[in-house]
Amino acid sequence: MPSIDLNADVGEGFGAWSMGADEALLAYVTSANVACGFHAGDPSVIDRTVALAARAGVAVGAHPGFHDLRGFGRREMRVPAAEVESDVLYQVGALAAFAVTHGTGLRHVKPHGALYNQAADDAELAAAIARGVARVSRGLVLVGLAGSEVMRQAAAAAGLRYAAEAFVDRGYDARGRLVSRSRPGAVISDPAAAAEAAVRLARDHAVRTAEGGELAVKADTLCLHGDNPNALGVARAVREALERAGVSVRALAR
Amino acid sequence: MPSIDLNADVGEGFGAWSMGADEALLAYVTSANVACGFHAGDPSVIDRTVALAARAGVAVGAHPGFHDLRGFGRREMRVPAAEVESDVLYQVGALAAFAVTHGTGLRHVKPHGALYNQAADDAELAAAIARGVARVSRGLVLVGLAGSEVMRQAAAAAGLRYAAEAFVDRGYDARGRLVSRSRPGAVISDPAAAAEAAVRLARDHAVRTAEGGELAVKADTLCLHGDNPNALGVARAVREALERAGVSVRALAR
Amino acid sequence: MPSIDLNADVGEGFGAWSMGADEALLAYVTSANVACGFHAGDPSVIDRTVALAARAGVAVGAHPGFHDLRGFGRREMRVPAAEVESDVLYQVGALAAFAVTHGTGLRHVKPHGALYNQAADDAELAAAIARGVARVSRGLVLVGLAGSEVMRQAAAAAGLRYAAEAFVDRGYDARGRLVSRSRPGAVISDPAAAAEAAVRLARDHAVRTAEGGELAVKADTLCLHGDNPNALGVARAVREALERAGVSVRALAR
Amino acid sequence: MPSIDLNADVGEGFGAWSMGADEALLAYVTSANVACGFHAGDPSVIDRTVALAARAGVAVGAHPGFHDLRGFGRREMRVPAAEVESDVLYQVGALAAFAVTHGTGLRHVKPHGALYNQAADDAELAAAIARGVARVSRGLVLVGLAGSEVMRQAAAAAGLRYAAEAFVDRGYDARGRLVSRSRPGAVISDPAAAAEAAVRLARDHAVRTAEGGELAVKADTLCLHGDNPNALGVARAVREALERAGVSVRALAR
Repeated sequence: MPSIDLNADVGEGFGAWSMGADEALLAYVTSANVACGFHAGDPSVIDRTVALAARAGVAVGAHPGFHDLRGFGRREMRVPAAEVESDVLYQVGALAAFAVTHGTGLRHVKPHGALYNQAADDAELAAAIARGVARVSRGLVLVGLAGSEVMRQAAAAAGLRYAAEAFVDRGYDARGRLVSRSRPGAVISDPAAAAEAAVRLARDHAVRTAEGGELAVKADTLCLHGDNPNALGVARAVREALERAGVSVRALAR
Repeated sequence: MPSIDLNADVGEGFGAWSMGADEALLAYVTSANVACGFHAGDPSVIDRTVALAARAGVAVGAHPGFHDLRGFGRREMRVPAAEVESDVLYQVGALAAFAVTHGTGLRHVKPHGALYNQAADDAELAAAIARGVARVSRGLVLVGLAGSEVMRQAAAAAGLRYAAEAFVDRGYDARGRLVSRSRPGAVISDPAAAAEAAVRLARDHAVRTAEGGELAVKADTLCLHGDNPNALGVARAVREALERAGVSVRALAR
Repeated sequence: MPSIDLNADVGEGFGAWSMGADEALLAYVTSANVACGFHAGDPSVIDRTVALAARAGVAVGAHPGFHDLRGFGRREMRVPAAEVESDVLYQVGALAAFAVTHGTGLRHVKPHGALYNQAADDAELAAAIARGVARVSRGLVLVGLAGSEVMRQAAAAAGLRYAAEAFVDRGYDARGRLVSRSRPGAVISDPAAAAEAAVRLARDHAVRTAEGGELAVKADTLCLHGDNPNALGVARAVREALERAGVSVRALAR
Repeated sequence: MPSIDLNADVGEGFGAWSMGADEALLAYVTSANVACGFHAGDPSVIDRTVALAARAGVAVGAHPGFHDLRGFGRREMRVPAAEVESDVLYQVGALAAFAVTHGTGLRHVKPHGALYNQAADDAELAAAIARGVARVSRGLVLVGLAGSEVMRQAAAAAGLRYAAEAFVDRGYDARGRLVSRSRPGAVISDPAAAAEAAVRLARDHAVRTAEGGELAVKADTLCLHGDNPNALGVARAVREALERAGVSVRALAR
């Protein structure tokens, strides 16, 4: 019986600003990636969000990003590797303390935005992230883009378990990278299309590219974006379709 | 044989900016309070500073402050108690991760600047700080202003050990509060005067006030400020005078 | 024929976060207070917001706040007067440049949140704000809480025109201060009640307090909050009621 | 008689942190580039620094950077052009207000750090900077790297006067770009070497490269770095050598 994890980025508010419908989304996923304060998510937001995830029985992960509140961590930056390592250690360490006090451990770490995208192709950056995570705990699972050998090897070198992530609501190019958000076909907001993509990913380990081709993608976890215009509709459709197709939806193993 | 801890605030740089002579100062103290990123101390600075303290055999503590980089955490602010609790939990959690990875545990937590000063007289704020610390670990020691019953009781209510702190390089008023930095007599930069004050505090549990009176002060730890114009001279004189007077200088017990 | 200005706080998004329905709200007001980047409103938001206001023919004002993004400028802070003066000058100077390039001048300055509230009763703070504004231009109108002699005198001392502001969607206490947002009766979200309060303020110079009493309030401008749960309904009702009552709704004179 | 401007980056402190010896350095230069708050320089620092420059009779310019306090604006970032334009407009507008209130106008704008370096080769970025500056005033002079046609053309397209800048205390590569600070030969701290380079630049329009070659460089202004280990010694030597060589040292013409 095939199995897959469903994850979502949550806790992306800051101060007076909120973003996404975390509580509703947490009903459909098995893993939550909680923003750690550098691109979103102040400590009050983190405290509330980890409490919500723990109560929902969802595995709690850290979602560290570049120190870029203004750009929501989505702007490409050149940051020295040693600095990235310390920044990841800081953010993951802080998140771990919240996860522990809410009675659940920290399960995984998934880099956010530009940090995630750059690390898929930058071995030095990926190694810095993995070292930062491993310095908090070797028991954490590092999540990276399915198809990125760079991230997989960085996790292995740091002694971390690794989980490959695919996207059911984002378009893929022929190289297996996500279509830029500024391009057409970048975001899939039709629940049925996303649900079909999820089942194909979980069962057949394949995805259809924006160009119409077929791409082999072996994923351990599927991401559901909360900022999708129809996020909850997509989440419900994906979850139901996976269960109907006999896929076991469960969090990443420690 | 009387004993006392000597502590210093360290890691107060940020990005391209440095402050204080941490490495030299660490040779004279037994406890280091490391800034946690909210008023000073980015993750790179924290990483380097905790490494220095660990190598020097100095007990590592967290020094959380208000989220106020511009004001170095010295500006009085009215922050809701729940927010302070989450902020302290976040900062202490992050620092603890650095302390662990550098092979030493986190020993204590001392609030910084306005957070420290306000908490000495504000029971709700003190309780929020203590809860934030206790949610990371009940094994941490909370440090507060000697003479503040508010802080002592907050620590007790949260199940934390408590250490009372006195200052050898700051003037006291008749109430046992520090003379404001904007007033004359606020900072004592004469090494001999500071050394004498240290010995009196450690041995006789007393301090002379700025008004010339005598005040009973029972302290477990003495603070040496790194931003004192003659910080290293003061630190050396204090350490030597204490040892000459037969006072055992050692870190706070866990 | 009585006349009054209607103002709203706009441009309160930041980075990826948005707040309020600025474009719709601008159809009902004659003055816009644009956040300046310290509590909300990054330069991209400011650029777009000033463009919207200019296109709508609404007078553009600056809405400077404390340097407190996390607390949205609503947390009480003790900031040295010289620092407040420089901070106001910086924010108003920046806003003025946007107003000029969008073909409209900067008309007025209204402090935000805690800065506004504290200045109503703190003469030193009010004077610092007024000096900061006057250093950009003596032609600007300073807006403060109706009933605050402190702000009126600070404006006069700095050579600035002054406009007194009242609130149609906030409750008043017997002293003429706003009921704290944490108390019941703080926010009035019923359009009819707000519209009635607006007409009474504009025509009769009076307001009913939360305690049920009557208070004389002489206002030059009325504030409509965009974060009111029913902000647009309130705005439309207020505007229509004022015009029906024969009140001329127009921006503050330079 | 050849003439040249000497400029320095000043006002690079922030909050409790200071950097450089601005007051001493201002005695040797004719133009000051004042940090605008995004990579350094809070409003209090700006107020003091512009006052110092005005009193010293030095032309005041704005030194806008990326919104990156942590990285001091030195980290390469990919920021959308529209965002850069608004950010430059904001920073230059704020600085202009300080320059006016201190009785001197704003003369020039020189981008800082990574923004400056990236713009030398990125036409879209250079155009965004130039538009941001021109929206404040067409009377401002835009300063860019000597040899960068991209910046020269961006200034021309925006209707701005342009000044080419060369460096007397930084090494050049054969392409006319600065040697990266992480490489040997990046920083020249010997006063005599810097003074000789200054005279050659001002009189012969040439510079010796790190590789030992000769490069034609036509510069209108020479930069003296305040963070050079021997900044004041270099500044004095350069100024004296230029005057001894009969070069007229004066600010950029409006």
